[in-house]
Amino acid sequence: MSGEVPRLDSEEFRREAHRVADWIADYFRDLAGYRVQPDASPGAIARQIPAQPPREGTSPDRIMEDFQRIVVPGLTHWNHPGFYGYFPANTSPPSVLAEMLVAGLGVQGMSWSTSPAATELEQAMMSWLRQMIGLPETFTGVIQDTASSATLVALITARDRSIADLGVSIDRLTVYASEEANSSVPKGARLAGVRPGQVRLIPTDDQAAMRMDALEAAMARDREAGLVPCCVVATVGTTGSTGIDPVATIGSLCRETGLWLHIDAAFAGSAAILPEMRWVLEGADQADSLVFNPHKWLLVNFDCSAYFVRDTVALRRSFGATAEILRNPQDDRVANFRDWGIQLGRRFRALKLWFVIRSYGVEGLQAMVREHIRLGKLFASWLDSDPRFERIGTAELATVCFRLRGEGSVDRDAINRDLLRRINETGRIFLTGTVLKGRFVLRLALGHLSSTEAHLEEAWSLIRGLVGAS
Amino acid sequence: MSGEVPRLDSEEFRREAHRVADWIADYFRDLAGYRVQPDASPGAIARQIPAQPPREGTSPDRIMEDFQRIVVPGLTHWNHPGFYGYFPANTSPPSVLAEMLVAGLGVQGMSWSTSPAATELEQAMMSWLRQMIGLPETFTGVIQDTASSATLVALITARDRSIADLGVSIDRLTVYASEEANSSVPKGARLAGVRPGQVRLIPTDDQAAMRMDALEAAMARDREAGLVPCCVVATVGTTGSTGIDPVATIGSLCRETGLWLHIDAAFAGSAAILPEMRWVLEGADQADSLVFNPHKWLLVNFDCSAYFVRDTVALRRSFGATAEILRNPQDDRVANFRDWGIQLGRRFRALKLWFVIRSYGVEGLQAMVREHIRLGKLFASWLDSDPRFERIGTAELATVCFRLRGEGSVDRDAINRDLLRRINETGRIFLTGTVLKGRFVLRLALGHLSSTEAHLEEAWSLIRGLVGAS
Repeated sequence: MSGEVPRLDSEEFRREAHRVADWIADYFRDLAGYRVQPDASPGAIARQIPAQPPREGTSPDRIMEDFQRIVVPGLTHWNHPGFYGYFPANTSPPSVLAEMLVAGLGVQGMSWSTSPAATELEQAMMSWLRQMIGLPETFTGVIQDTASSATLVALITARDRSIADLGVSIDRLTVYASEEANSSVPKGARLAGVRPGQVRLIPTDDQAAMRMDALEAAMARDREAGLVPCCVVATVGTTGSTGIDPVATIGSLCRETGLWLHIDAAFAGSAAILPEMRWVLEGADQADSLVFNPHKWLLVNFDCSAYFVRDTVALRRSFGATAEILRNPQDDRVANFRDWGIQLGRRFRALKLWFVIRSYGVEGLQAMVREHIRLGKLFASWLDSDPRFERIGTAELATVCFRLRGEGSVDRDAINRDLLRRINETGRIFLTGTVLKGRFVLRLALGHLSSTEAHLEEAWSLIRGLVGAS
Repeated sequence: MSGEVPRLDSEEFRREAHRVADWIADYFRDLAGYRVQPDASPGAIARQIPAQPPREGTSPDRIMEDFQRIVVPGLTHWNHPGFYGYFPANTSPPSVLAEMLVAGLGVQGMSWSTSPAATELEQAMMSWLRQMIGLPETFTGVIQDTASSATLVALITARDRSIADLGVSIDRLTVYASEEANSSVPKGARLAGVRPGQVRLIPTDDQAAMRMDALEAAMARDREAGLVPCCVVATVGTTGSTGIDPVATIGSLCRETGLWLHIDAAFAGSAAILPEMRWVLEGADQADSLVFNPHKWLLVNFDCSAYFVRDTVALRRSFGATAEILRNPQDDRVANFRDWGIQLGRRFRALKLWFVIRSYGVEGLQAMVREHIRLGKLFASWLDSDPRFERIGTAELATVCFRLRGEGSVDRDAINRDLLRRINETGRIFLTGTVLKGRFVLRLALGHLSSTEAHLEEAWSLIRGLVGAS
């Protein structure tokens, strides 16, 4: 086809799309047979890609062959039943189907008029999610790409409110989060223009929860120094060990003192769809904003973060984008979501929420989250019954932190780093490590559609085998 | 399946994925028969979605039926051959195939180790794109979701550099862009914490290009007032009428005075893949950063913005995210793209670039861009030959602005707003309007895979018919 003007050939697409559909189905079927993490050294994939772009076109056959030969062996398989790293980044059949349709449609959700169904379905899905996690109607939802962006949106809105209401310089604002907050929180505060030295990471207790005495002391010190506390970001489910900040108490403090309270419930928020886990969001009704990620634990493909905010006028004051080309006669009666976040262009993300929630129903999603929590506790019980291991923190949220106790004067961090390395080198399961209170720990995170009790038993057996062999 | 734990059923997925593949192929085949913009009033779609989430699961048949019945009639079809609105937001067969695979894989590109192939393919594709538009090797590329985010990234990096190097308060910084800059530019400056009153929108000449005398005067006034000029955002291809700021001259000024120069070439940057259009990026080698959107005019699905930056150390100083859980032994030898932008989590966007550039080859993409530019000039020639129309600005970049001249004391803005409304109400083609130098104009934007000369002839015939009938 070299030099010819490309055309939209629906029948060629049909042929290739069927092939790709089969490839994905085979991938799902065979996933457990892959190495979880590739055995790749830096540059190994890059070396296989020509340094210059091709002048002429290549056949679909050849591209699929190269995809299989070059790309797939270089991937970490996040939906592998042996993937227990970082956080679950779920994909699921109905979500992939919706993503396929979204790619084919290629519509824009920046304004209501640029695809009314995209905006209205998003409003409906955010209402469904709000009800599912038990937030009151005082919150309005909008999809953001990631929790990083949602938290940045909250911080910028809080910043602008403080500057406008109090007439203070941005240079005097301070932001508070716990030392266990996700890296995107202090980063977000810096991106919002808060001075790096005025982002306070508050010490946590032994459950990885923010210490109220330390928070209040930090605020008092700042006020004394002439600084202006602006926002607290409370974490529900820390990345390290699913610790939960005392949201209700922080909420009262924020209400009394006029601070913005943003809740980062990126992973753990999904647990609130279970009546018996609703307590994780206790006090969240006091917040100004909250984010949780259906793309983590609700079977929705990345990216899809649910951002809920109380004061949509303040949000639009900070994020409104006006231009003649964007105006429409319906503007006073509709939501134009370009005014609710950073990006002007917006993918049609609501469709995958609709497909997933309808396919499984709330009860199906509840059954899955409940099962993952059960598996987490089961794994914790196995650890607790083996005297070689020490378990750290809670195991209530499908994430379990542990380490080898070690004997005598052995370097405990070193033996645990070594154990993690040896586990991951098997390629059969994948865990991440982190540091809690200065101690290196291994961390097993559940939450995928593909992981069952049998897989977890295999993981436990593999870990024990490696310890026995060390 | 109510209450059961959902499982990853590869064969059920296979069945449904084939059905969806056919749906998309049919959609491509039948696209021209749809209304471009739906005949929907606010709330019409929302009313068809139950207010509460379903407790039980729904069959795939029913979900696809509802998709077809509720969602599709509420969409604006951005890839319709009659869509000439806003900007082209392309989809193309190889890009959709890649998006399908990416959804199925569900991998994360936040760090090299979280999927080495995602990072290394991204580096390779950004090098290909850099060469395709003729930027020197002094630039390093990274994918951002949208130009809004990329421009915000540039502004935050520039802001942090000014604060660090000059030891000034953020409150004294000023940012410059033309009055025709995209809404995301002044919005981005405000989001970065620049005082709203210190974002200068510089007047343009009659080609919608920033006036250098006005830029220099604004900077001089600001310096005199004790403010600190920080960044100029130059536009290559304004959203309204594809005007081009004098980049080379602005670049010299920025070099002399130590300002950051960011180039927003979101739409028009793709034209630089043509040797005969390379001039649109003249002077861009002087810039500190540049963004253009392969998702606009290079057949790559939204979202995919190519951000090129000279000083990657400064970028990572502003956007670096550190946390123990993110550390890896290879960190000193690899790029961890979470440190190159706002979001921690990152989709595997490089795959669609690879599929698209390889499928068509550079020559295929060049042929397409060349054809769209030819069609733009052809449409301009039709307008120029009809005395009822006046053409505004250039027609060199596949976007043509025009309006009815009107007769006597008629309200020219009113008759043109009315013409636009009547054009779009037909549902057969879709244009957007904008205001240039105080005058309302209609704007026809080309750039889709599906639009041919025959479609453009139909559009012209329809427009002339409506004028004749008014």
